[in-house]
Amino acid sequence: MYPAPLKLLLEALERLPGVGARTAERFAFHLLQDRKETALQLAEAIRQVKEDLRPCSRCGMVTSDTLCGVCGDPARDHGLILVVEQPKDLYAIERLHQYRGVYHVLMGSLALLDGVQEKNLNLDGLNARLAKGDVREVILATNPNLEGDTTALHLLELLKRHKVSVSRFARGLSSGSPLAYASRAVLEDALEDRRRVL
Amino acid sequence: MYPAPLKLLLEALERLPGVGARTAERFAFHLLQDRKETALQLAEAIRQVKEDLRPCSRCGMVTSDTLCGVCGDPARDHGLILVVEQPKDLYAIERLHQYRGVYHVLMGSLALLDGVQEKNLNLDGLNARLAKGDVREVILATNPNLEGDTTALHLLELLKRHKVSVSRFARGLSSGSPLAYASRAVLEDALEDRRRVL
Repeated sequence: MYPAPLKLLLEALERLPGVGARTAERFAFHLLQDRKETALQLAEAIRQVKEDLRPCSRCGMVTSDTLCGVCGDPARDHGLILVVEQPKDLYAIERLHQYRGVYHVLMGSLALLDGVQEKNLNLDGLNARLAKGDVREVILATNPNLEGDTTALHLLELLKRHKVSVSRFARGLSSGSPLAYASRAVLEDALEDRRRVL
Repeated sequence: MYPAPLKLLLEALERLPGVGARTAERFAFHLLQDRKETALQLAEAIRQVKEDLRPCSRCGMVTSDTLCGVCGDPARDHGLILVVEQPKDLYAIERLHQYRGVYHVLMGSLALLDGVQEKNLNLDGLNARLAKGDVREVILATNPNLEGDTTALHLLELLKRHKVSVSRFARGLSSGSPLAYASRAVLEDALEDRRRVL
């Protein structure tokens, strides 16, 4: 029923995360009636992101240069590496304006059920950085879920081969969320990771 | 913090209806990590929709030809015009596989507060079609809201100048939705438009 270009647009939009047929239609009809320049800005922005951005040659973060802003910054502590799954995780930590070390972006997690294996992750890069011997500490900040934990365990095996101190992000209660509504997993983490205060 | 191409992509995505900063980020990071060809398919689909689709020279519907599929179909009843606001309204009616007349797509409604005026709507085209004298009946199917009703009233003034019978879509209870939960406006419509059955 739809003309061919519209059908193709709907299919492409439905591939976005959380976008079903209804939302894809809403987006498509918006783009259809939007001013031509405005709609084409989106097309051009997608093209540019795919053409102009590449992984940082050191940490794997997306960047338009060879080194990302963090890896290229001599003021950062290059002896401290925080390992995250995704660029968005890095941004979340950078927004704190508190962490002064550098990063390593795995570009995924070990989701074996989805076919994401070791070789799909940016692990060789991490190995190479550690082999140089300049890194004191690695902080693991994978997601607190099955895939993230599997990845962290796997990383630990890899890190054991290097002389490096390793820590992982704390797990427990979420600041601001009532204890009574916390899930079983959160309460178990809070109990297990409890901190001695006296 | 974001590299420039990513920032532009986020801005462009946030212009989609109902997409805020969070969803734009989710879409952007998905596109960033998607296979290059897949992501570029979306860019290309947007470009094609804006380059290859144009309004049907008769009814204003989007089409890749001069006439849309409905207007170009001699088996349809060209003496009966159903007026809708948007292409998606036309598709909703076509999906019924029941209506055999043709359409007129206004490409909007009189949303005076948003600056959408008479001149922004595809009204001259409707006038021209009616002036030919081949149209028996016009069915108004604008949306059942302030803008749609304003548009319908305005259309009625225009249609009075032509010898044509005019009806509008029925309004009342939604099939399947309990009466007890219907809004005041729906109940008022149902009472006002009640149908004699005996």
